[in-house]
Formats: sequence, structure tokens, C-alpha cells
Amino acid sequence: MKPWETYYRKITPYVPGEQPNVPGMIKLNTNENPYPPAPGVQKAVEELNTEQLKLYPDPTSSLLIKALAEHYKVEENQVFVGVGSDDVLAMAFMSFFNSDKPILFPDITYSFYDVWAELFHIPYTQPPLDEHFRICKEDYYRENGGIVLANPNAPTSICEDLHFIRDILEHNQESVVIVDEAYVDFGGESAISLTKDFENLLIVQTFSKSRSMAGMRIGYAIGNSSLIKVMNDVKYSYNSYTMNLTSLYYGVEAVKDENYHQECVKRIISTRERVMAALKELGFHFPASKANFIFASHNTIPAEKLYQDLRNENIFVRYFNKPKINNYLRITVGTDEEMNQFLEVLKRLVKEN
Amino acid sequence: MKPWETYYRKITPYVPGEQPNVPGMIKLNTNENPYPPAPGVQKAVEELNTEQLKLYPDPTSSLLIKALAEHYKVEENQVFVGVGSDDVLAMAFMSFFNSDKPILFPDITYSFYDVWAELFHIPYTQPPLDEHFRICKEDYYRENGGIVLANPNAPTSICEDLHFIRDILEHNQESVVIVDEAYVDFGGESAISLTKDFENLLIVQTFSKSRSMAGMRIGYAIGNSSLIKVMNDVKYSYNSYTMNLTSLYYGVEAVKDENYHQECVKRIISTRERVMAALKELGFHFPASKANFIFASHNTIPAEKLYQDLRNENIFVRYFNKPKINNYLRITVGTDEEMNQFLEVLKRLVKEN
Repeated sequence: MKPWETYYRKITPYVPGEQPNVPGMIKLNTNENPYPPAPGVQKAVEELNTEQLKLYPDPTSSLLIKALAEHYKVEENQVFVGVGSDDVLAMAFMSFFNSDKPILFPDITYSFYDVWAELFHIPYTQPPLDEHFRICKEDYYRENGGIVLANPNAPTSICEDLHFIRDILEHNQESVVIVDEAYVDFGGESAISLTKDFENLLIVQTFSKSRSMAGMRIGYAIGNSSLIKVMNDVKYSYNSYTMNLTSLYYGVEAVKDENYHQECVKRIISTRERVMAALKELGFHFPASKANFIFASHNTIPAEKLYQDLRNENIFVRYFNKPKINNYLRITVGTDEEMNQFLEVLKRLVKEN
Repeated sequence: MKPWETYYRKITPYVPGEQPNVPGMIKLNTNENPYPPAPGVQKAVEELNTEQLKLYPDPTSSLLIKALAEHYKVEENQVFVGVGSDDVLAMAFMSFFNSDKPILFPDITYSFYDVWAELFHIPYTQPPLDEHFRICKEDYYRENGGIVLANPNAPTSICEDLHFIRDILEHNQESVVIVDEAYVDFGGESAISLTKDFENLLIVQTFSKSRSMAGMRIGYAIGNSSLIKVMNDVKYSYNSYTMNLTSLYYGVEAVKDENYHQECVKRIISTRERVMAALKELGFHFPASKANFIFASHNTIPAEKLYQDLRNENIFVRYFNKPKINNYLRITVGTDEEMNQFLEVLKRLVKEN
């Protein structure tokens, strides 16, 4: 061991999920949107004069903040933007979770929460989901250094209602509560309205799912201006200019076109409902999804086998080899055409097994 | 004080430098390049099909890593990329500086080093520059948890040669040494060649200066593959996808066109030399600059006064109200035309004072 290696940050290397790139593949493994971004984004791309790139971008990201504040009917000082919701969440962990008490999040949830806790040396406890993959709200009545809930939760696709979120907030007036709403546009109800009543509530959303912009890396948080100020203090102390000029220009166009946004969401929801019915016919069970993916298990065929068989046909879904969920597949909702092909192959595989 | 505020990260809010946006202004305050990015960047912009943005970008940034590795004749596993050199440096601080011993960097240097040290709770000591703003290498012979040197240094513009860097490395085989070469292309010699001999040496560079891409936020590090691996482990645990698709596509074009890059650098150096001569005529003194800025003090007129007077004429230069340097202006080298206007106004101001 070299002497300087003793000063390395001690972490378990996190391996990002697979990003296959096979011609003709059907990619249903990372919950991307199958439809392109709003048409205005293409226009903004065509109008970009690269001469502008020689200057630093606006460190306050005001164009994008303004568009989001108008869209969600909040003040500009209630909005924070970052390089994907991962950047936003990491900044929030760094900003708000500096207590000796453990932060709380479910044992089955977005796989990055424990990674950030480890990275920033934040103690944490993971109350288990119940046997129906539901969060037990009573588990969050105990003393804690903060709470993080994905709603809808991933990979379960289950969304809790606002009474549930309100109840957790009413029992937690001592720490910051983060609700990660990456998938909320696909049928859930956002808790943004609760930020009026709860100063310690931070909502995090993303452009990567319902807005079809995973490739641009844009995420945002909405909350009381005092929370946003702390996040900005930390952000400016980390990297004053996180959002490049293209994120600002292209992002604004994606927020502005609400009709297109709603149209994409509707199509995905309609495809999802149809695929859920077809999966049931094929012998699968799953929680009712409020996300752009379905978390499904077959009544007789092991998930890992199906995952591999689908893979051999260039259809990529997500399989987690983890206790409690290792007999489930997380299937992203693609276009109708993609899902028809998927269902056709699946039908054959189920028959063969 | 609200209860959750006790869990906030304790930091002194960092205020990013001013980004004025006045029509007709001459902006010489943030060391941007006055020339546009390489022509290939405009072509890449025009060719971008926004349909691609619906998918996550390649988490390994392989297109850009490959282009940089080829350009610098190193292996791909020796290159790390991030959202500007600020992101790269912040990741490096988090990755390598986890010792109880203080890290070392000069008292006058890039203003972010102490901000990151505070943010990540890293102890630090700042050996003073000598009266000619030179780094005293003997100050870096003591025990430490790491070393960070900007070369050329900012805001002094002074570049030390490779013997100097090698000497510091020979005296430091116990900790990671970072050389921040943001400005090295403007006449300095890069220490990338020394990474062959010193496994604990990390070089950091940026697209924001000589490559005219401040608006895109692209920075990179080059070093031994074992250092790069640790940075990637930390990066993947923070945000798996830091580089958006446009950074990868546009960045590659900026690296590929070395002729254009050299042409821009030559023009800036030639303008700098001419402006230095003219400033001398006007009664200024300054260290010989190897950067795209000049760090100048007038023999009789206080810097703060000149800064304000220039500002009133919509000419923005940088003034630091800090001990030892509060009688200096940091003047970015713009186009010949901009610098002619600047010199004309300055001539008048000097006469009037």
C-alpha cells in the first residue's frame, strides 16, 4: 500500500447500472422516456450560437429557475437546480444531514440513498417495507437526523397519497424530510403543495423521466426558501457553475411546453395500464404502478431466468439480485410498439418455460 | 432557530464572482477566452438530434476520455472528466484528502481551495508567497495530508518550471500532490510528463480557458490509473452521470481541433505581450504573465480607484480586497480591439488621476 492511499476516502465502489447499446435492442432497463423531448428543445439546439459558450454560464441559473417557479407557482427563491436529481439529492444530503442521529429511508428504495450516506459518513437506518412493499409510516415516528422517501417508491412503483406524507411530516418537525418525486408525474400527487405548511419539507424532481431529458442531466428541488438558501450556500462552495449553458437553454424549453409534457405522460400511462392487463394474463403479479415502470413477478417462472431469456432476445429489463426483491423484474414502459414486441416475446418465453 | 437547522452543514457562504451583463461592456474580469470555440463545435451543435436526449448519457464519458487520452498520449484509464475543473478538484479533495494532517497551498492562490477544505472539513495550512509572489518550495517540505498548487498561479499569473514541480514531488512521496494547470496552455509547461515518474501526482486542466468553453463546464484530470480509479469510485457514488450528452459531443470537437486551439493561444499571448508593454508605459508593474491575464499594480494610483473608474466606463476587471494583493488588478486578456479600448480608457484615467 502506498502511503498516500491511507488518505483515500473509504467507500465501496458503486457500479452504475448497465447502459447496453445493441442495434435493434428494446431498452426497458433504466426508466427512460421513450418519446423525444418537447419540440422547442430541438429549436433551441438549432438556435444555439456557440460563440456564447466562451463565457461562464449564469451561476444562479436564473432562466431555468424562473421557468420552474412559474410552472409550479412558487417563488424563485424556493427552487434549486442541479446536474440531475442525483446531484440535487447529494447536495441535500450534504446540506441537511449533519447530525449524529441516523437518517431514515426504507430497506427497498432508490439504490443511491445508502451510497450517499456512506460517502458523506451519515449514519442511517432502513425500516423494512411490509410484505406488500408498502412503507410503514409508524417506522418514521422515531427520533432521526432526517428522512428520505421516494414517492412513488422505486423499484416498487407504489405511490402513497398526501395524507400519508402529511402524517409523516406531522410526526417529524425536528429534521428535514426529503420526498423524491422522480416518478410523480405518472399518476401520483406531488407534495409540493405541502411545502407551504412544512418548512422542513424538500421536494426533489427530475427532467430525466416525464420530460424525456435524461441525457441533459437536470434535476431540481422545491421547498421553503431557507432550505434552498442552505443548498445554494453548499453548491456555491462546491462548484459555482454546475449547469452548463445548454442545460439552461434546453431545460427552459422542456418546462414551457406543458401540453407536450402532458401528452407524453398520458401515452405512457395508457400503455402502462394495457401492459399491466397483458402481464396479468401471462401469470404475473405486481403492485399497481404509478410510475413509468412495472415491478412484476411471475407466479411460477423465476425472475432471474426471465431476465436472462429476455436479454438473449435483446430485450433489456432490470433485475435486482437482492433479498426480498430477487424474484421481480422492473420493466420500463416504452412505446406501444416496443411493449407489443416485448409482450410477444414474453408470451413465447412463458409458454416455453 | 428551527430544530433541523442544527443539522445544517456549517459553512461560510461563498459568493460567486460577479457576472455583469451590460450591453457594450468590455468583460475582462473572469479570465474567459475572447475567441469562440473551435468551428467543429458549431457543427456538432447543428447535428445534435434531440431524440437522443431521452436516454442517459454514457456514465464513463468514453468519447471525451478517449479524445483526451489520444491528445495527451496517455491511457484512457489515466483520464477523469467532470463538470468544470471545479467539480474535478472538489472530487479530488474528497477522494484524496482524508488525513488528520493539514493539506498545504499558498496564502495567495485560487480562491476555491480553502472553500473546499472548509466544506469537506479538511485541515489546511497556507504558506505565504514571498514578496515577489513566488511560491517558496521549502515550505512544502513539511509533513502534510496533501498539496495543491496552481501553476501558473492565480491571480499572480506566475508559472514555475518543471524542476520546481519535480523538486516538490521528490520531497513529497507520502501524500497526493495536485497541480492545477487551468492556465498552463498560455506559455507554461505542463507537468503531465511527470505523472510517469510520480504515481501521487494529479494534473487538473479545463476547457474554460484556452479552449473557449467556459459555458460548457468541462474539466479533466490526468494521473496514474490508481488515482483516477479512486476518483471514479467517488464520482459514481456521488452522481453516476455528471457529463450531459452535449458536453461529451461538443467537448470532443474542441479537443480534436488542435490547430485552432494553438491559433487562439498564440493570438492571446501576442496580445498579452503587447498589453504588458503598454501597461509598463502607463506606470504599471506586474509579474511576467504566463496566463491569459495580467496581475498589475500602478506605481501611484490605488487599484481600487482604477477598478471603480474602469467600472464606470463599463470595463470590468477583477479586484481582490484582500491583504497583500489589494493594490492589484487582475486583467483578462481580451481581443486586440477590446484591449485597445481598454488601454485608451486607462491612459485617460491615469492622466486624470
